[in-house]
Amino acid sequence: MSDSPILLTPGPLTTAIETRRAMLRDWGSRDPAFIALTAELRAGLLRVAKGEGTHVAVPLQGSGTFIVEAAIATLVGPQDKLLVLINGAYGERMVTIAKRMGRAVEALRWPEDRPVEAARVAEALRADPSITHVALVHCETTTGLLNPVEDVAAAVAEAGRAFLLDAMSSFGALPLDLSATPVTAVLASSNKCLEGVPGIGFALVTPAALEAAAGRSPLLSFDLHAQWKGFEKDGQWRFTPPVQVVAALVEALRAFEAEGGQPARLARYADNLRTMLAGMRRLGFELFLDESLQAPIIATFRLPESLAFRPFYDALAERGFLIYPGKLTQAETFRIGCIGALGRADFERLLAAVEEVLAPA
Amino acid sequence: MSDSPILLTPGPLTTAIETRRAMLRDWGSRDPAFIALTAELRAGLLRVAKGEGTHVAVPLQGSGTFIVEAAIATLVGPQDKLLVLINGAYGERMVTIAKRMGRAVEALRWPEDRPVEAARVAEALRADPSITHVALVHCETTTGLLNPVEDVAAAVAEAGRAFLLDAMSSFGALPLDLSATPVTAVLASSNKCLEGVPGIGFALVTPAALEAAAGRSPLLSFDLHAQWKGFEKDGQWRFTPPVQVVAALVEALRAFEAEGGQPARLARYADNLRTMLAGMRRLGFELFLDESLQAPIIATFRLPESLAFRPFYDALAERGFLIYPGKLTQAETFRIGCIGALGRADFERLLAAVEEVLAPA
Ligand SMILES: Cc1ncc(COP(=O)(O)O)c(C=O)c1O
Ligand SMILES: Cc1ncc(COP(=O)(O)O)c(C=O)c1O
Repeated sequence: MSDSPILLTPGPLTTAIETRRAMLRDWGSRDPAFIALTAELRAGLLRVAKGEGTHVAVPLQGSGTFIVEAAIATLVGPQDKLLVLINGAYGERMVTIAKRMGRAVEALRWPEDRPVEAARVAEALRADPSITHVALVHCETTTGLLNPVEDVAAAVAEAGRAFLLDAMSSFGALPLDLSATPVTAVLASSNKCLEGVPGIGFALVTPAALEAAAGRSPLLSFDLHAQWKGFEKDGQWRFTPPVQVVAALVEALRAFEAEGGQPARLARYADNLRTMLAGMRRLGFELFLDESLQAPIIATFRLPESLAFRPFYDALAERGFLIYPGKLTQAETFRIGCIGALGRADFERLLAAVEEVLAPA
Repeated sequence: MSDSPILLTPGPLTTAIETRRAMLRDWGSRDPAFIALTAELRAGLLRVAKGEGTHVAVPLQGSGTFIVEAAIATLVGPQDKLLVLINGAYGERMVTIAKRMGRAVEALRWPEDRPVEAARVAEALRADPSITHVALVHCETTTGLLNPVEDVAAAVAEAGRAFLLDAMSSFGALPLDLSATPVTAVLASSNKCLEGVPGIGFALVTPAALEAAAGRSPLLSFDLHAQWKGFEKDGQWRFTPPVQVVAALVEALRAFEAEGGQPARLARYADNLRTMLAGMRRLGFELFLDESLQAPIIATFRLPESLAFRPFYDALAERGFLIYPGKLTQAETFRIGCIGALGRADFERLLAAVEEVLAPA
């Protein structure tokens, strides 16, 4: 619909109208037509990360946090210990989740503007053989920082531990090759770089890790082993799926493949970031991160002292653009996403709007 | 869309095209426009059960099972004991949930074709003072049986225990007056008698019960106290909401009020049931339940020996009608729902289709 704002956030994002139109019909959730849709979804998700030969796709109702919590509940047992690598809010959230659940958990922390270092991880694993699982956030949406997933995955595999990757804000855009990179479970959701609407998360997990986790989750709905077995048994979701959200994600996956898959999506987002960054710098804004660490997902800018976030937000919202507040403790910032069904022209229009808002009245 | 089947199931259901069209736009989940939508949703849900003066509405991402599990995780503490009143699969599911979570739980059982009896509940509560919470399924979707919610609520209140009501398949259709009936928490979801699309559940809970439960849930996402406090703080969902599902439910609530609220919805569903029942009997089918126990939600029929479910389902599906399998252990049955955006004419067309399918070739 033409009255949709342009979403420059970490999700929900601007989606293609075809994706939204896929929600215009009703589906019986146990009918063969919907079973076929679910099968297409699960196969498509695996293909995005080349996981067909090594992993299975387990979608789950709810937001991204739900799939993270379900993965920890299912995969990290009461005798296990989880090490979380943290340089932002989503890493911290995994510690909160594991603690509340009563799981043993340790944290290794880096400043919010520094990437996780594989060497320190290797060292920590040597020092503590009781650590069984390591968790990392691929793109820390707090800042937009890209963590070195291949190096960390190699260090964790070398030490013989399981590796959980929160790829929520990177999946589909940043390269991830499960046939080459050892990851036990990748976690992501419908409404970020796949450009679906929010309502489901998913895990790509090795069958061995799931088999070993049978009956382990303290939650019925957050039991990824049972959820997987449900799909394998009759192709159905154990509990009522958000059928329209699934239909939209399948449509979005078709568009993703038609666009050229992950490389094409990355190219578009990288172009969005370049356009936006050049323009914002021209207008006097400063990127929070060192540019080499900045993923083409969401950019964090320092808020100039002369600018208050709320009126800036409102003035851009009036012009049809929704930006995002900062989430940092150490500096006043705001964020602008580069993901969603958007291209260079949208960012050029955004820059014109920012310029207009900044212009002295 | 004209190619949507008619869903004669316990949900997802047939929805109005206006409800589905409400999903055609994008929303920023932290934008004032969506905050207003969430406020309208929470107020509207309370109004359905006259809970404005006594309860607060706490929507949660996910399916109906998720809100049941979240309510048990939040409201039933490690020192508490839950008594579940069971005459079908959804009562059994609450026992499974409580057990997995490590909560103390007892069950009182009735046959699948008998309603729960308040006198036996009162007796059980007298006999075991350690029971702190009692849970009941309002309409047991397994059969379509209506349980006597007012009598049970009175017995539980009389004994001074908390009362959890799974009103998943009844909410909005069967009368429920929270200003007169003592219920601690009512649990339901978007995609049944409110005629929204699936993707969120909700609890209507007393603030006192939530306040007493701060920090108690072992799950971050299933913490209804924190979820409530999040809404109260800034009107936002703690974690990404399924924005289009929310928009559809708000649209469905508007249509619900325009239709005349719960009494009008009940009248339409009761008429659907009457039409369907008369026709099915004429065609030789027998209702599983005694008619006095049958709620106008979903009817269970005995499967005649001459009929196999699968070809019967397929033949009706070809004609655009999706019926539902049985869920009983004690008899071969199938189910036909009377809920959703359907009226008498739809059931007359269904009956014609059934007759056609049964006719000797
Ligand atoms: C890296 C990361 N992890 C987890 C989440 C949580 O997802 P949700 O908000 O859908 O619960 C997000 C959301 O932005 C995220 O970016
Ligand atoms: C009474 C009752 N409780 C719980 C549920 C579970 O809901 P969901 O399938 O959305 O998880 C249902 C679903 O039909 C139900 O009818």
